[in-house]
Amino acid sequence: MEKKIPLILVSNDDGVHAKGINELIRFLRPLGNIVVMAPDSARSGSGCALSITRPVSYEQLSEEPGMTVYSCSGTPVECIKLACGAVLDREPDLIVGGINHGDNSGTNVHYSGTMGIAIEGCLKGIPSIGFSLCDHTPGADFGHLEAHVRHITSVVLQYGLPARTCLNVNFPCGKIKGIKVCEQAVGQWQREWDPCPRKGEANYFWLSGEFINTDPANGKSDNWALANGYAAITPTTVDMTDYPFIDQLKERL
Amino acid sequence: MEKKIPLILVSNDDGVHAKGINELIRFLRPLGNIVVMAPDSARSGSGCALSITRPVSYEQLSEEPGMTVYSCSGTPVECIKLACGAVLDREPDLIVGGINHGDNSGTNVHYSGTMGIAIEGCLKGIPSIGFSLCDHTPGADFGHLEAHVRHITSVVLQYGLPARTCLNVNFPCGKIKGIKVCEQAVGQWQREWDPCPRKGEANYFWLSGEFINTDPANGKSDNWALANGYAAITPTTVDMTDYPFIDQLKERL
Repeated sequence: MEKKIPLILVSNDDGVHAKGINELIRFLRPLGNIVVMAPDSARSGSGCALSITRPVSYEQLSEEPGMTVYSCSGTPVECIKLACGAVLDREPDLIVGGINHGDNSGTNVHYSGTMGIAIEGCLKGIPSIGFSLCDHTPGADFGHLEAHVRHITSVVLQYGLPARTCLNVNFPCGKIKGIKVCEQAVGQWQREWDPCPRKGEANYFWLSGEFINTDPANGKSDNWALANGYAAITPTTVDMTDYPFIDQLKERL
Repeated sequence: MEKKIPLILVSNDDGVHAKGINELIRFLRPLGNIVVMAPDSARSGSGCALSITRPVSYEQLSEEPGMTVYSCSGTPVECIKLACGAVLDREPDLIVGGINHGDNSGTNVHYSGTMGIAIEGCLKGIPSIGFSLCDHTPGADFGHLEAHVRHITSVVLQYGLPARTCLNVNFPCGKIKGIKVCEQAVGQWQREWDPCPRKGEANYFWLSGEFINTDPANGKSDNWALANGYAAITPTTVDMTDYPFIDQLKERL
């Protein structure tokens, strides 16, 4: 019996023309047939947002053996919903977001469109990964990630993932010492606003900020791994229930 | 010693003029001083999205003893970031989102701007609640929620919440049989796109869909509670790490 070629759906939040997604495609092509459905322009910080009040459309940009590329007017999550619900003729075997230009470790998982893609894939019951590099510049160098991306993706294709779990994979810049499986770092964004007064009015601001890590010093967090030169894989569940707190809350009500 | 009056920061994703937030303010006023920082128009389906590429501004709409109301050009999460980082002179004691016109139970927690507010508050270490009603119409009746909203809020003001946990509270329409502390329902959105061809081009769609619940029939989920006439409180953690999978994943890599 012929072995089925995996169908890999790829998206991102930096837009279909970003370097990161095109490097990702290059890394993944040996592993399966690729369909790209990515936003037509940058959607950084999209989280799991939806458009709701306007229609979403897509357009085919290119087609060649083993790869088709579409751009989409919607959010990263809508790229996944649209590909799976209106474009692909079968369910993908794997959904991959990235490679994001910028760090999505720690609490950034909540704001990340790259992880929105992985969360959406996971909610659909499809093994899903978000890849990010700690360099937000448009010309960032992704070359050193190739073997790691292919290895991690191959492992997920081979073993799958638990039903409600996806992977948040973040890479440091420069040489990678190895891979650590991590916990989501604890910390807070602070000094989040830079004033940009308009016509003398002070109430205009750019979002900015500095992430203050408040992890226990146990070397387990994704932030720690990245700061120490390791790639960080944080297994991420879409079930946000705080089970241990359920009984205590019942008593208080 | 005089007891400090709680400072309650209120926001929503339906916009500052929606009925739901104004009913929420009415319910909460007896419990503390209220500051409202809410989007200047509807931002449904915002999740934890950020604007990033444009500045965010705010404007004071009204001020009276015990209550100040601002509108904001940003997303629900940015309303919280802006109020805490650039407007309020002290940290709020409580952050409340809602009352949303529409159900945010189950996997909707990921797409919800109302829960984006609660998640952001929680990430800042502040006890936070998102309230939603299973009626998305602009004129929805919120009157029957008053005692429940006040009770739940009072409990959180009194006891606080665990450091990385917020509450996702959803109310059914009509008579409420009681309150259940729940787990996030398992299920999937299906048939998510309604075609809306434009000038004969078939590649335009409205986001739509139907939530297919695949819960085990154990009466524990928020979807179950709502379908059976109960208010559902789902304690929701912002730590998305899948701890049980960490060791297994290490072996596979």
